This record gives sequence, C-alpha cells and structure tokens, in this order.
Amino acid sequence: MKIEHVIQSQQFTVPLIWELFNRTKQMERIVRKGGTKDYERYIMATLFYAPSTRTRFSFESAMYRLGGKVLSTEQAQEFSSEIKGERLEDTIRIIGNYCDLIVLRHHEEGGAARAASVSKVPIINAGDGSGGQHPTQALLDLYTIYNELGTLDGLKVALVGALDKGRTARSLAYLLSKFERTKLFFIAPPELQIKKDILEHLDEKGVSYELLDSVEKVISEVDVIYQTRIDKERLHNENVDLSIYNITPNVLRRMKNNSIIMHPLPRSVEISREVDTDPRAAYFRQAENGLYVRMALITLLLDNE
Amino acid sequence: MKIEHVIQSQQFTVPLIWELFNRTKQMERIVRKGGTKDYERYIMATLFYAPSTRTRFSFESAMYRLGGKVLSTEQAQEFSSEIKGERLEDTIRIIGNYCDLIVLRHHEEGGAARAASVSKVPIINAGDGSGGQHPTQALLDLYTIYNELGTLDGLKVALVGALDKGRTARSLAYLLSKFERTKLFFIAPPELQIKKDILEHLDEKGVSYELLDSVEKVISEVDVIYQTRIDKERLHNENVDLSIYNITPNVLRRMKNNSIIMHPLPRSVEISREVDTDPRAAYFRQAENGLYVRMALITLLLDNE
Amino acid sequence: MKIEHVIQSQQFTVPLIWELFNRTKQMERIVRKGGTKDYERYIMATLFYAPSTRTRFSFESAMYRLGGKVLSTEQAQEFSSEIKGERLEDTIRIIGNYCDLIVLRHHEEGGAARAASVSKVPIINAGDGSGGQHPTQALLDLYTIYNELGTLDGLKVALVGALDKGRTARSLAYLLSKFERTKLFFIAPPELQIKKDILEHLDEKGVSYELLDSVEKVISEVDVIYQTRIDKERLHNENVDLSIYNITPNVLRRMKNNSIIMHPLPRSVEISREVDTDPRAAYFRQAENGLYVRMALITLLLDNE
Repeated sequence: MKIEHVIQSQQFTVPLIWELFNRTKQMERIVRKGGTKDYERYIMATLFYAPSTRTRFSFESAMYRLGGKVLSTEQAQEFSSEIKGERLEDTIRIIGNYCDLIVLRHHEEGGAARAASVSKVPIINAGDGSGGQHPTQALLDLYTIYNELGTLDGLKVALVGALDKGRTARSLAYLLSKFERTKLFFIAPPELQIKKDILEHLDEKGVSYELLDSVEKVISEVDVIYQTRIDKERLHNENVDLSIYNITPNVLRRMKNNSIIMHPLPRSVEISREVDTDPRAAYFRQAENGLYVRMALITLLLDNE
Repeated sequence: MKIEHVIQSQQFTVPLIWELFNRTKQMERIVRKGGTKDYERYIMATLFYAPSTRTRFSFESAMYRLGGKVLSTEQAQEFSSEIKGERLEDTIRIIGNYCDLIVLRHHEEGGAARAASVSKVPIINAGDGSGGQHPTQALLDLYTIYNELGTLDGLKVALVGALDKGRTARSLAYLLSKFERTKLFFIAPPELQIKKDILEHLDEKGVSYELLDSVEKVISEVDVIYQTRIDKERLHNENVDLSIYNITPNVLRRMKNNSIIMHPLPRSVEISREVDTDPRAAYFRQAENGLYVRMALITLLLDNE
Repeated sequence: MKIEHVIQSQQFTVPLIWELFNRTKQMERIVRKGGTKDYERYIMATLFYAPSTRTRFSFESAMYRLGGKVLSTEQAQEFSSEIKGERLEDTIRIIGNYCDLIVLRHHEEGGAARAASVSKVPIINAGDGSGGQHPTQALLDLYTIYNELGTLDGLKVALVGALDKGRTARSLAYLLSKFERTKLFFIAPPELQIKKDILEHLDEKGVSYELLDSVEKVISEVDVIYQTRIDKERLHNENVDLSIYNITPNVLRRMKNNSIIMHPLPRSVEISREVDTDPRAAYFRQAENGLYVRMALITLLLDNE
C-alpha cells in the first residue's frame, strides 16, 4: 500500500492502519536494538511555523533512530516574515530541494494540503491550524489503545474535555468509527460538546454514542478515558466546578482493571499527579508510542520512492 | 587553488569560478547517487544573527549530503544579547573550537571579514548587512546562468528591480563583468537605479550596459531576466504603477525561447504564478543549485586542511 | 565509578574528578584524530529554557565528536508556554522517550534536580537559575587550571568580579577547596563580595583565604586570576572606578611567568584585548576545554548503561 503524503487521518483505511501498526511494532524492536542505519542517506526537514518542541523532538528522534538526518526550524514564521505575501507553496518548492521529506506544522487550516499540492517530496502534517488536522497524533492515540488493550473492536471510549475544538479527540472519534461495535461517550460542559459534523458521521456509520456532562455514570464500564484540557475562559459561567471532569485517585478507584487513561499532553490539572503511578495511566506510554508510529510513517513514505 | 574563507564575490577569479563550477557539477552527481560520507568527521556551524531558514537549510543540507554534521542557531542575536559589548570576534574564537567551518549571517556590513580575521576555521559569509555581501548567492546565480544557457560569454542580461540596494543584483553584475562580451540592462525606477560604483567598475572593464525604466524595449533580445523585488515604500511617488516591472505571461510571450527568468526568492507579486510552469522559469532550479554550489564551496574549504 | 546525573559540582569527589580528567585527556586525543563513532547510536537532547548558544554548541559538538546525534531547542520556554501550569517533570518524562541523555538549562534554581528525580535518562545540568549550579563550567575551569599549571595542589587563586552572585566563581572556590594547600583571594567591591556560605565552607575545610578590594596586593604572587564581569548597575555608588578590577597589559606585566588568566566568557571590558596575545591568557583555551570535559562527562554517563 502506498501513500504519498500524510495530511489527514481520514486518508487511513483500516488495511492501511494495520499495515502501519505492523510497521510500528517492528520499529519498537528496532529502537530496542539501538536503531538502524537503513535510512542514513535521507534528510527530513521539520518546518514548524508554530513551536512545539515535544512534537518536533518526537519526529526528529524518529528520523535519527532510522539513521537519517534532520533540518530543523522552531520558528519558520519569522523566516516567512521576511516578505509579506510570500506563499507557503513557494517555500515548500524551495525546501523540497534540500530534503527528502517535510514535516510541516502550519498555523492555517489546510496548510498541509496546500503544501502537498506542490511538493516534490512527501509532506507529513504535524498539525495545521487549531481547527485543522494532526493525523500523527490520532494514529499514535489509536495505536496506544490497540497496544494496551490488544484490540480495537467492541471498545467503550470516553472522550472528555473541550471537545468542540478538541482536534485530537475529534480525530480519534473519527478513527474509532472505523472499527466494530465501538461505543463513544462524549463528556463535556454543554457549550463545549463535540460538534454535529462528528455526530452525523457516527450516525452514518451506525456507531452508537452518548453525550454526557460527567464521567460519573460510565466510569465503571469504559475501556478508555481519553482526557483533554478545558480552558476555563471558554465556559459561559466561569464559576462552574470543572473538577468534576478531573481524573483523581477517587475516579481511578471505580475504573475497570483492564482500562486505560490517555491524554495527548501537556496536561494541566485535569489528571492528578497521584494517578501517574497507576498502571492504567497510559499517557506517558502514549507519548513514547509517538516515536514508533512516526518512525513507521516515515518509512512508509520513504519506501515509496 | 586554495581559498581560506568565502567573504565576498570579488575574491573569485575566473579560474577559481571554473574550478568551483566543475566541483558543483560533481556535487550534482553525488546528490543524485544519495550523497557521500567523505566529510563525515566534519562539523559545520551555521551562526545566523538574522533568521533565514531558506539559506540556512541550503547550507545545512549541503553539509548533510557530504556526510557532515551541523551545529545550528536561528537566533544568535539573542545569545550575544547576554552581555552588551560582546564582540563578534570573541564569539568566533570560541565557536571555532567546536566546529571545522562557520557559516555566518551577520547584521553588520563587514561582519564576515572581521570574523575571518580572527577565526581558526574557515568562514563562509552567508550575508552581512543589507548593503554587504552574499557571495554564495552570487555564485549560485552565476552557476544557474551557466548551467541553463551553457555559456557565460556574450550574454545579454537584464537586472530588474530595486537595484540601488539590491545585494544580489549588484554582485551578479560584478561577476558577469569578468566574462566576454557581456551586455547588461539595468531596469529600475530612476530613484532605485544601480549605483555609480558598479557602473564605474563596468566602464573600467569595458563592459557595455544601458539604464532603462521598463523591460519593454529589450524583452525580446535578453538571454536572462534577473528579477528582484521593489518595495513600494521606497518610491518617491507611491502612485507609480510598478506592474510594468512584473513578469507576466504577456511578457513571457515576447521572450526568446532560449532565455531564462531568475529570481533570488522569496518573491512577492513581481513574477506571476502563471509563469511558474514555463520551462524558462528557472528560479526554482536556481534555488536547487544553491545546494550544489554550497556543497562545492564547503569541499573547497575543507579540502584545504 | 558511576554517576547517574550531573546536577551539581559538589557531587564530584576527588577520585571522580581524577577519573573525569583522565577521560578528558583521552577525549583531546580522540578529537585530534577526527572524533569517534563509538556513540553513534545515542541521541542527546539539549533542552534550553534560556538561550546560550555557546554552551549549547559546546555540548552538541561534544556529542558529534563522539559520533552521536542531537535534538536541539534554543527556546524551550516557548514550548512550555503552550499551557500554564505545565510542569518540567512532565516534559522530562516525555522527552526522555526520544533520547538517551538530556542536557538541561532551566531558569529555576533546582530545576535540574527536579528533572533528575523523574527522568529515565541521565540529566546534565547546563545551568539552573542565576543562583543555581553550572557544574560543567566549574569542572572545565578546574580542568583548565590543572592542564595549564600541571597541578591542583598549593595554588594561589584570585577570584575577581561580582562574586556574590557569581555562579562560576562560587563553584570553582568550592571545587578548589578539595585540594591541598589552596589559597584563595576574593577580590570584589565590598557590596559584591563572596557570600558567607562559601567562607564558612572554606573555614570548615581549613582552606585559607583573604577578602580584598583590588588585585594590586596579590598580583605578583597568584597562579591564577579568575576574572568575571561586574555590572555597574549593581554597585551602591555608580561612580566607583571599576577599571581597578580590569586586567590590562599593565597588570599583566606584574604577573608571574607561570600564571594564567581565566574568564568564563563572554567578557565585556574587564580584560583588555591587548591581553589576548599573551601566552598567559588562557580563556580561549578554557573555552576549548569545555568540549573535552563535556565529551568526558557524556561518556561517563552513557557508559553506565
């Protein structure tokens, strides 16, 4: 199976997801053995218009473990400020001469697709705009669920937080809809609930779901809690007690043994530190999986050539 | 032929230019074969006091394709701000302990020469001050003309834009004056025309030239249009219609088949997007040549040791 | 001897210092022969919350000369600004998945120790807070004295400048107190003199010292002048003539032949440029030693695994 670019999570069919996850497993083994040199002739450019050291390091580490080299910018924004009216398309055409793969974080929704339309090297979307896509995060989230629970079928998943603009939660809901007997719980203050487009998509696919405003009711039956932040400033009433959305040792006590807590990180107060030592706290393993999934994606693109 | 540093385009004699271009051809072949490891023990530092991701990536990619390693800063300015009165010379003396080659972009004219005067490793000037030099750009421009047209003799070259402060156009005029039967057309609004120093140099060398304020008259006879930006704010009368300087499909139609359009990039409106697909649009190939010319320069300096 | 992290200079016992210096000597030889590939499977992350290109390049060059790879950020501050309340501990847990070693410069005193307490990879403290530690600087200072003078016993060392907050001078005083018959001269304007904690430590160890406000009296007997900056704004009376603390050719003339002048750099006016060419001016060699000492520290940590 061949893909030219990684632009949005929708482009990943179930067979492609399985191929990716097989490769990801292989990458875990490669890293455990100290990496490979198989890709040492390749150069990857991380072109970040908005800084995100965590995501950038994850990609760059992936390239290094594969033996490759990295061109890196934390502040591509400044370089485009040289001239008003410079277009992303020109930049991509130029940078494409200097590398074999571009990892792009752009501030405008649709930036990655525009880049891909003119690029002579593969583009990986590392986030475009706050309402845009971040497909590698969605894929590593899905991989984490698979890796922790051993299956992607018949899972009950609670997505918690400011879901209306929650790029990661939205993408994960989308990807989970591809699997059998998924049941989703969207848990958020009413004004920050998941948007209709996702619900319509789930209706179409016949995926069952519920909208809730507390984890209370479902805590003892879910397989996955996917926790995200809620910015207090976005609430209609700032006096609402957000702590009802937090994961605390008390919440943990009522969760199934064979369940996990995830978070795209960074976190604020929505998961207590006391939870970290519980084996069900999967969020740091989730961050680690970012490395393997990104290695797998890079090889998928470079093996195409 | 040996050079210690690359500081200004004037230091390149015709024989040295040919040696460089032979090396450049070789570098194209090396890149096509996936690069080399011949320089893997070398470390290059890109010390940029003003960000320019495009130029930086071009140098760093060159070093990677040669097998080398890269120390990189996008904002050396900040590190010197640690202490008022720190001198570039001290910084160069220190950084020279950590690498084998320094690529310097400095905000002050003459910065590169000052750096070279104290450095124990070779310095490449990647631009010093807006009125200063950017010799690697001038060399890649010249190489592009040679590579596209097969010769550097008897060429008619139109330099278009704000030529008075146009670092790249000025350097290219200078380099072209070294070759036989060059004819130059300087095309600019009167207040932004090329400065006398260049014209005096051309008179001395017996190079013929004309000053014009539109491409109209010469468009059908030139071999090269070297297009640059004009900032409207710099005009005496902001109501002047600058579109007469722009390259559009209409202008293109009257150009010779065997001619090229160049631009140091980034561009604004002075070349229409519709021009991009024409084979005479050489500006993206020009950017690509930056890689090969810089590889050649790096090897020229490192082979000295 | 094994160490897990490099957090503060106090953790270095005399035997460990000697082991480190033996390794450092070895590293000088390795660099002279063009580096090694022995550590090529390792990735080091330089996580700098405050920019310091010089220190960062020194570490990154060290890793490159060992064959390793580098993840680098000049502005980790911005990435943590993504979310208020993000904790360094979480960042370290995440980044630890992407590398084998973290070099951390943090703006808060104690940052490095906090990082070490949760990290799954070794941490090297590259400076934490202005009142905090910078142990690799202290070790390279000590190594420079040893390398230049051939011994660490019986030395008379003058520490000059704003000693109260002088991180490097304080650490060096601490390390020198471990060696036989050390005599220290603390030379500073009264309000910026070395703090009591250091003097109490010296009393405990039976190290002799004097507090002075000019180099005059001791200039002809000291083995080492360790010069640092004085910021005029920190003086009670800004009219005080600070030039009495400066090292000039005139001061130099009265120094012993077998003595050295050191400075952690960058310098302002406190050492005249005319001093640079004197063989006793050791500050640029001191900067070079940073490379070898850091290589030695990196191998000490990675060989543990």
